[in-house]
Amino acid sequence: MKYCSACGNPISLRVPAGDARHRYICDACETIHYQNPRIIAGCVPVFGSQLLLCKRAIEPRYGYWTLPAGFMENGETVAEGALRECVEEANAVLHKPELYTVIDIPHISQVYMFFRGELAEPRFSAGIESLEVELFDEADIPWDEIAFPSVKKTLEYFFADRKTGIFPVRTDIVRRHKDSPLG
Amino acid sequence: MKYCSACGNPISLRVPAGDARHRYICDACETIHYQNPRIIAGCVPVFGSQLLLCKRAIEPRYGYWTLPAGFMENGETVAEGALRECVEEANAVLHKPELYTVIDIPHISQVYMFFRGELAEPRFSAGIESLEVELFDEADIPWDEIAFPSVKKTLEYFFADRKTGIFPVRTDIVRRHKDSPLG
Repeated sequence: MKYCSACGNPISLRVPAGDARHRYICDACETIHYQNPRIIAGCVPVFGSQLLLCKRAIEPRYGYWTLPAGFMENGETVAEGALRECVEEANAVLHKPELYTVIDIPHISQVYMFFRGELAEPRFSAGIESLEVELFDEADIPWDEIAFPSVKKTLEYFFADRKTGIFPVRTDIVRRHKDSPLG
Repeated sequence: MKYCSACGNPISLRVPAGDARHRYICDACETIHYQNPRIIAGCVPVFGSQLLLCKRAIEPRYGYWTLPAGFMENGETVAEGALRECVEEANAVLHKPELYTVIDIPHISQVYMFFRGELAEPRFSAGIESLEVELFDEADIPWDEIAFPSVKKTLEYFFADRKTGIFPVRTDIVRRHKDSPLG
Protein backbone atom coordinates (compact mmCIF):
# COMPACT_ATOMS: atom_id res chain seq x y z
CA MET A 1 0.00 0.00 0.00
CA LYS A 2 1.55 3.24 -1.21
CA TYR A 3 -1.30 5.58 -2.13
CA CYS A 4 -4.53 6.71 -0.49
CA SER A 5 -7.53 4.92 -2.01
CA ALA A 6 -9.73 7.91 -1.13
CA CYS A 7 -7.69 10.79 -2.65
CA GLY A 8 -4.74 9.23 -4.52
CA ASN A 9 -2.00 10.99 -2.54
CA PRO A 10 0.96 9.18 -0.91
CA ILE A 11 0.45 7.46 2.42
CA SER A 12 2.85 6.77 5.26
CA LEU A 13 2.96 4.14 7.98
CA ARG A 14 2.51 5.79 11.39
CA VAL A 15 0.62 5.53 14.67
CA PRO A 16 -2.60 7.58 14.69
CA ALA A 17 -3.43 9.68 17.76
CA GLY A 18 -5.08 7.50 20.39
CA ASP A 19 -3.95 4.28 18.72
CA ALA A 20 -1.16 1.83 19.60
CA ARG A 21 -0.44 0.40 16.16
CA HIS A 22 1.10 1.56 12.91
CA ARG A 23 -1.51 2.23 10.24
CA TYR A 24 -1.36 3.42 6.67
CA ILE A 25 -2.43 7.07 6.87
CA CYS A 26 -2.86 9.53 4.02
CA ASP A 27 -0.45 12.46 4.24
CA ALA A 28 -3.00 14.69 2.49
CA CYS A 29 -6.52 13.78 3.65
CA GLU A 30 -5.55 11.93 6.88
CA THR A 31 -7.72 8.91 6.06
CA ILE A 32 -6.61 5.92 8.13
CA HIS A 33 -6.53 2.70 6.09
CA TYR A 34 -7.09 -0.17 8.53
CA GLN A 35 -6.16 -3.70 7.59
CA ASN A 36 -7.84 -6.64 9.28
CA PRO A 37 -7.79 -10.45 9.24
CA ARG A 38 -9.84 -12.32 6.70
CA ILE A 39 -12.21 -15.24 7.17
CA ILE A 40 -11.90 -18.37 5.05
CA ALA A 41 -15.27 -20.14 5.04
CA GLY A 42 -15.27 -23.85 4.29
CA CYS A 43 -17.25 -27.09 4.42
CA VAL A 44 -16.86 -30.63 5.68
CA PRO A 45 -19.22 -32.37 3.22
CA VAL A 46 -20.38 -35.74 4.54
CA PHE A 47 -22.10 -38.46 2.53
CA GLY A 48 -22.83 -41.55 4.57
CA SER A 49 -19.48 -42.69 5.95
CA GLN A 50 -17.54 -40.71 3.33
CA LEU A 51 -16.08 -37.20 3.10
CA LEU A 52 -15.75 -35.06 -0.01
CA LEU A 53 -12.35 -33.59 -0.89
CA CYS A 54 -11.23 -31.43 -3.82
CA LYS A 55 -7.89 -31.63 -5.61
CA ARG A 56 -6.66 -28.09 -6.11
CA ALA A 57 -6.33 -26.74 -9.66
CA ILE A 58 -4.76 -23.49 -8.43
CA GLU A 59 -1.75 -22.33 -6.45
CA PRO A 60 -0.85 -22.42 -3.66
CA ARG A 61 -0.72 -26.17 -3.26
CA TYR A 62 -1.75 -27.12 -6.78
CA GLY A 63 -2.53 -30.85 -6.93
CA TYR A 64 -3.06 -31.24 -3.18
CA TRP A 65 -6.37 -32.22 -1.59
CA THR A 66 -8.52 -29.80 0.37
CA LEU A 67 -11.96 -29.24 1.79
CA PRO A 68 -14.04 -26.74 -0.22
CA ALA A 69 -13.19 -23.30 1.22
CA GLY A 70 -12.46 -19.74 0.22
CA PHE A 71 -12.54 -16.11 1.28
CA MET A 72 -15.82 -15.00 2.80
CA GLU A 73 -17.41 -12.18 0.78
CA ASN A 74 -19.04 -8.95 1.95
CA GLY A 75 -22.81 -9.25 2.41
CA GLU A 76 -22.96 -12.94 3.22
CA THR A 77 -22.97 -14.96 6.45
CA VAL A 78 -20.05 -17.28 7.16
CA ALA A 79 -22.30 -20.30 6.52
CA GLU A 80 -23.50 -18.81 3.22
CA GLY A 81 -19.88 -18.34 2.19
CA ALA A 82 -19.07 -21.95 3.08
CA LEU A 83 -22.04 -23.27 1.04
CA ARG A 84 -21.13 -21.02 -1.89
CA GLU A 85 -17.57 -22.36 -1.92
CA CYS A 86 -18.90 -25.92 -1.87
CA VAL A 87 -20.92 -25.16 -5.00
CA GLU A 88 -18.08 -23.27 -6.72
CA GLU A 89 -15.38 -25.85 -6.07
CA ALA A 90 -17.35 -29.10 -6.10
CA ASN A 91 -20.80 -28.37 -7.57
CA ALA A 92 -22.13 -29.91 -4.38
CA VAL A 93 -25.07 -28.76 -2.26
CA LEU A 94 -24.65 -29.14 1.48
CA HIS A 95 -27.58 -29.37 3.88
CA LYS A 96 -27.89 -28.16 7.47
CA PRO A 97 -24.42 -26.66 7.84
CA GLU A 98 -23.24 -26.52 11.44
CA LEU A 99 -20.19 -24.59 12.60
CA TYR A 100 -17.51 -27.13 13.43
CA THR A 101 -13.93 -25.74 13.50
CA VAL A 102 -12.57 -22.23 14.03
CA ILE A 103 -8.84 -22.15 13.32
CA ASP A 104 -6.64 -19.08 13.72
CA ILE A 105 -3.57 -18.61 11.53
CA PRO A 106 -2.24 -15.40 13.08
CA HIS A 107 0.99 -15.12 11.08
CA ILE A 108 -1.02 -14.70 7.89
CA SER A 109 -3.99 -12.96 9.55
CA GLN A 110 -6.54 -15.57 8.57
CA VAL A 111 -9.33 -17.34 10.44
CA TYR A 112 -10.71 -20.56 8.96
CA MET A 113 -14.28 -21.51 9.81
CA PHE A 114 -15.50 -24.93 8.65
CA PHE A 115 -19.11 -26.09 8.63
CA ARG A 116 -20.07 -29.74 8.82
CA GLY A 117 -23.03 -30.80 6.67
CA GLU A 118 -24.66 -33.56 4.69
CA LEU A 119 -24.79 -34.10 0.96
CA ALA A 120 -28.33 -35.18 0.18
CA GLU A 121 -27.05 -37.24 -2.73
CA PRO A 122 -23.61 -38.06 -4.16
CA ARG A 123 -23.82 -35.43 -6.89
CA PHE A 124 -20.68 -33.38 -7.41
CA SER A 125 -18.10 -32.48 -10.02
CA ALA A 126 -14.95 -30.42 -10.28
CA GLY A 127 -15.48 -26.66 -10.29
CA ILE A 128 -13.02 -24.37 -12.04
CA GLU A 129 -10.60 -24.33 -9.08
CA SER A 130 -10.58 -28.14 -8.72
CA LEU A 131 -8.84 -30.83 -10.80
CA GLU A 132 -11.09 -33.53 -9.36
CA VAL A 133 -13.57 -34.08 -6.56
CA GLU A 134 -13.92 -37.37 -4.75
CA LEU A 135 -15.61 -39.06 -1.79
CA PHE A 136 -13.17 -40.73 0.61
CA ASP A 137 -13.53 -43.35 3.29
CA GLU A 138 -11.44 -42.57 6.38
CA ALA A 139 -8.96 -45.32 5.44
CA ASP A 140 -8.34 -43.73 2.05
CA ILE A 141 -7.78 -40.10 3.10
CA PRO A 142 -4.53 -38.94 1.41
CA TRP A 143 -3.00 -37.59 4.63
CA ASP A 144 0.35 -36.79 3.01
CA GLU A 145 -1.29 -34.81 0.24
CA ILE A 146 -3.54 -32.49 2.26
CA ALA A 147 -3.14 -28.89 1.11
CA PHE A 148 -3.29 -26.93 4.37
CA PRO A 149 -2.75 -27.50 8.11
CA SER A 150 -6.21 -26.05 8.86
CA VAL A 151 -7.78 -28.70 6.63
CA LYS A 152 -5.70 -31.49 8.19
CA LYS A 153 -6.68 -30.41 11.70
CA THR A 154 -10.36 -30.28 10.73
CA LEU A 155 -10.21 -33.79 9.25
CA GLU A 156 -8.45 -35.11 12.37
CA TYR A 157 -11.08 -33.57 14.66
CA PHE A 158 -13.84 -34.94 12.46
CA PHE A 159 -12.70 -38.56 12.48
CA ALA A 160 -11.97 -38.43 16.23
CA ASP A 161 -15.37 -36.91 17.04
CA ARG A 162 -17.20 -39.30 14.73
CA LYS A 163 -16.30 -42.13 17.09
CA THR A 164 -18.60 -40.53 19.69
CA GLY A 165 -21.07 -38.95 17.29
CA ILE A 166 -20.72 -35.64 19.17
CA PHE A 167 -19.26 -32.70 17.25
CA PRO A 168 -18.66 -29.71 19.53
CA VAL A 169 -17.16 -26.63 17.91
CA ARG A 170 -13.38 -27.14 17.92
CA THR A 171 -10.98 -24.21 18.13
CA ASP A 172 -7.30 -24.40 17.27
CA ILE A 173 -4.31 -22.34 16.12
CA VAL A 174 -1.87 -22.98 13.28
CA ARG A 175 1.51 -21.41 14.07
CA ARG A 176 4.22 -20.61 11.57
CA HIS A 177 6.48 -23.62 10.98
CA LYS A 178 9.98 -23.01 9.73
CA ASP A 179 9.82 -26.03 7.44
CA SER A 180 6.36 -25.25 6.06
CA PRO A 181 6.13 -25.27 2.26
CA LEU A 182 3.68 -22.41 2.67
CA GLY A 183 6.23 -20.14 4.38
CA MET B 1 -12.52 3.77 -2.90
CA LYS B 2 -11.46 5.89 -5.88
CA TYR B 3 -7.72 5.34 -6.39
CA CYS B 4 -5.40 2.35 -6.55
CA SER B 5 -3.47 1.94 -3.30
CA ALA B 6 -0.61 0.27 -5.23
CA CYS B 7 -0.02 2.84 -8.00
CA GLY B 8 -2.27 5.86 -7.28
CA ASN B 9 -4.22 5.75 -10.56
CA PRO B 10 -8.04 5.76 -10.79
CA ILE B 11 -9.93 2.53 -10.21
CA SER B 12 -13.26 1.31 -11.53
CA LEU B 13 -15.83 -1.14 -10.26
CA ARG B 14 -16.05 -4.15 -12.59
CA VAL B 15 -16.11 -7.94 -12.67
CA PRO B 16 -12.64 -9.47 -13.11
CA ALA B 17 -12.18 -12.37 -15.55
CA GLY B 18 -13.19 -15.62 -13.88
CA ASP B 19 -15.00 -13.85 -11.06
CA ALA B 20 -18.73 -13.34 -10.43
CA ARG B 21 -18.60 -10.15 -8.37
CA HIS B 22 -17.82 -6.51 -8.92
CA ARG B 23 -14.41 -5.54 -7.53
CA TYR B 24 -12.42 -2.35 -7.44
CA ILE B 25 -9.80 -2.79 -10.17
CA CYS B 26 -7.02 -0.40 -11.13
CA ASP B 27 -7.40 0.89 -14.70
CA ALA B 28 -3.60 1.20 -14.97
CA CYS B 29 -1.93 -1.68 -13.11
CA GLU B 30 -4.95 -4.05 -13.01
CA THR B 31 -4.56 -4.72 -9.28
CA ILE B 32 -7.81 -6.12 -7.87
CA HIS B 33 -8.72 -4.61 -4.50
CA TYR B 34 -10.78 -7.19 -2.64
CA GLN B 35 -12.93 -6.16 0.30
CA ASN B 36 -13.91 -8.70 2.93
CA PRO B 37 -15.93 -8.91 6.16
CA ARG B 38 -14.32 -7.98 9.43
CA ILE B 39 -14.29 -9.82 12.74
CA ILE B 40 -15.26 -8.11 15.97
CA ALA B 41 -13.67 -9.99 18.86
CA GLY B 42 -15.30 -9.63 22.27
CA CYS B 43 -15.58 -11.03 25.77
CA VAL B 44 -18.25 -12.16 28.20
CA PRO B 45 -16.39 -11.43 31.47
CA VAL B 46 -17.83 -13.43 34.37
CA PHE B 47 -17.15 -12.82 38.06
CA GLY B 48 -19.08 -15.19 40.29
CA SER B 49 -22.74 -14.67 39.41
CA GLN B 50 -22.05 -11.30 37.80
CA LEU B 51 -21.21 -10.07 34.31
CA LEU B 52 -19.05 -7.09 33.38
CA LEU B 53 -20.43 -4.46 31.02
CA CYS B 54 -18.92 -1.22 29.70
CA LYS B 55 -20.78 2.03 29.09
CA ARG B 56 -19.64 3.37 25.73
CA ALA B 57 -17.73 6.67 25.62
CA ILE B 58 -17.71 6.70 21.81
CA GLU B 59 -20.15 6.68 18.93
CA PRO B 60 -22.02 4.77 17.71
CA ARG B 61 -24.25 4.19 20.72
CA TYR B 62 -22.52 6.60 23.11
CA GLY B 63 -23.83 6.03 26.64
CA TYR B 64 -25.19 2.55 25.95
CA TRP B 65 -23.89 -0.61 27.63
CA THR B 66 -21.84 -3.23 25.81
CA LEU B 67 -19.57 -6.19 26.29
CA PRO B 68 -15.88 -5.38 25.70
CA ALA B 69 -15.31 -5.90 21.95
CA GLY B 70 -13.58 -4.41 18.95
CA PHE B 71 -12.05 -5.06 15.55
CA MET B 72 -9.66 -7.99 15.46
CA GLU B 73 -6.16 -6.90 14.39
CA ASN B 74 -3.74 -8.50 11.94
CA GLY B 75 -1.29 -10.89 13.58
CA GLU B 76 -3.44 -11.94 16.53
CA THR B 77 -5.82 -14.83 17.19
CA VAL B 78 -9.51 -14.08 17.72
CA ALA B 79 -9.13 -14.95 21.42
CA GLU B 80 -6.11 -12.66 21.74
CA GLY B 81 -8.13 -9.86 20.17
CA ALA B 82 -10.98 -10.47 22.61
CA LEU B 83 -8.64 -10.38 25.63
CA ARG B 84 -6.91 -7.25 24.30
CA GLU B 85 -10.25 -5.47 23.98
CA CYS B 86 -11.14 -6.48 27.55
CA VAL B 87 -7.95 -4.81 28.78
CA GLU B 88 -8.37 -1.73 26.56
CA GLU B 89 -12.00 -1.06 27.42
CA ALA B 90 -12.23 -2.33 31.00
CA ASN B 91 -8.66 -2.82 32.28
CA ALA B 92 -9.81 -6.34 33.10
CA VAL B 93 -7.89 -9.59 32.65
CA LEU B 94 -9.93 -12.59 31.56
CA HIS B 95 -8.86 -16.18 32.18
CA LYS B 96 -9.49 -19.29 30.08
CA PRO B 97 -11.43 -17.65 27.25
CA GLU B 98 -13.73 -20.08 25.46
CA LEU B 99 -15.47 -19.32 22.18
CA TYR B 100 -19.15 -18.81 22.95
CA THR B 101 -21.09 -16.89 20.27
CA VAL B 102 -20.50 -16.37 16.55
CA ILE B 103 -22.95 -13.80 15.17
CA ASP B 104 -23.13 -12.76 11.53
CA ILE B 105 -24.28 -9.27 10.57
CA PRO B 106 -24.23 -9.65 6.80
CA HIS B 107 -25.66 -6.23 5.88
CA ILE B 108 -22.63 -4.54 7.42
CA SER B 109 -20.19 -7.38 6.60
CA GLN B 110 -19.24 -8.08 10.21
CA VAL B 111 -18.87 -11.26 12.25
CA TYR B 112 -18.93 -10.96 16.04
CA MET B 113 -17.10 -13.63 18.04
CA PHE B 114 -17.51 -13.54 21.83
CA PHE B 115 -15.41 -15.50 24.31
CA ARG B 116 -16.70 -16.43 27.76
CA GLY B 117 -14.16 -16.25 30.57
CA GLU B 118 -13.58 -15.63 34.25
CA LEU B 119 -12.23 -12.57 36.00
CA ALA B 120 -9.82 -13.86 38.63
CA GLU B 121 -10.66 -10.87 40.79
CA PRO B 122 -13.05 -7.91 40.55
CA ARG B 123 -10.38 -5.51 39.31
CA PHE B 124 -11.44 -3.28 36.44
CA SER B 125 -11.81 0.36 35.48
CA ALA B 126 -12.96 2.39 32.51
CA GLY B 127 -10.60 2.40 29.54
CA ILE B 128 -10.52 5.37 27.15
CA GLU B 129 -13.51 4.11 25.16
CA SER B 130 -15.67 3.54 28.25
CA LEU B 131 -17.52 6.00 30.50
CA GLU B 132 -17.85 3.41 33.26
CA VAL B 133 -17.44 -0.31 33.82
CA GLU B 134 -19.66 -2.28 36.16
CA LEU B 135 -20.52 -5.81 37.31
CA PHE B 136 -24.19 -6.68 36.93
CA ASP B 137 -26.41 -9.36 38.41
CA GLU B 138 -28.83 -10.80 35.88
CA ALA B 139 -31.73 -8.93 37.49
CA ASP B 140 -29.95 -5.60 37.00
CA ILE B 141 -28.91 -5.93 33.35
CA PRO B 142 -30.02 -2.69 31.59
CA TRP B 143 -31.77 -4.53 28.74
CA ASP B 144 -33.18 -1.33 27.22
CA GLU B 145 -29.77 0.30 27.12
CA ILE B 146 -27.73 -2.43 25.42
CA ALA B 147 -25.66 -0.96 22.56
CA PHE B 148 -25.89 -3.66 19.88
CA PRO B 149 -28.14 -6.60 18.90
CA SER B 150 -25.10 -8.94 18.87
CA VAL B 151 -24.40 -8.06 22.50
CA LYS B 152 -28.05 -8.50 23.49
CA LYS B 153 -28.20 -11.92 21.82
CA THR B 154 -25.00 -13.01 23.55
CA LEU B 155 -26.33 -11.92 26.95
CA GLU B 156 -29.64 -13.75 26.32
CA TYR B 157 -27.82 -16.96 25.35
CA PHE B 158 -25.57 -16.65 28.38
CA PHE B 159 -28.33 -16.34 30.97
CA ALA B 160 -30.35 -19.13 29.32
CA ASP B 161 -27.36 -21.49 29.18
CA ARG B 162 -26.29 -20.65 32.71
CA LYS B 163 -29.44 -22.41 33.96
CA THR B 164 -27.96 -25.70 32.71
CA GLY B 165 -24.29 -24.85 33.17
CA ILE B 166 -23.59 -26.01 29.60
CA PHE B 167 -22.34 -23.40 27.13
CA PRO B 168 -22.17 -24.80 23.59
CA VAL B 169 -21.00 -22.39 20.89
CA ARG B 170 -24.06 -20.46 19.76
CA THR B 171 -24.41 -19.15 16.21
CA ASP B 172 -26.89 -16.51 15.14
CA ILE B 173 -27.57 -13.82 12.54
CA VAL B 174 -28.56 -10.18 13.01
CA ARG B 175 -30.57 -8.96 10.03
CA ARG B 176 -31.15 -5.33 9.08
CA HIS B 177 -34.15 -3.90 10.88
CA LYS B 178 -35.95 -0.97 9.34
CA ASP B 179 -36.45 0.68 12.73
CA SER B 180 -32.90 0.10 13.94
CA PRO B 181 -31.19 3.20 15.31
CA LEU B 182 -28.03 1.77 13.76
CA GLY B 183 -29.43 1.81 10.21
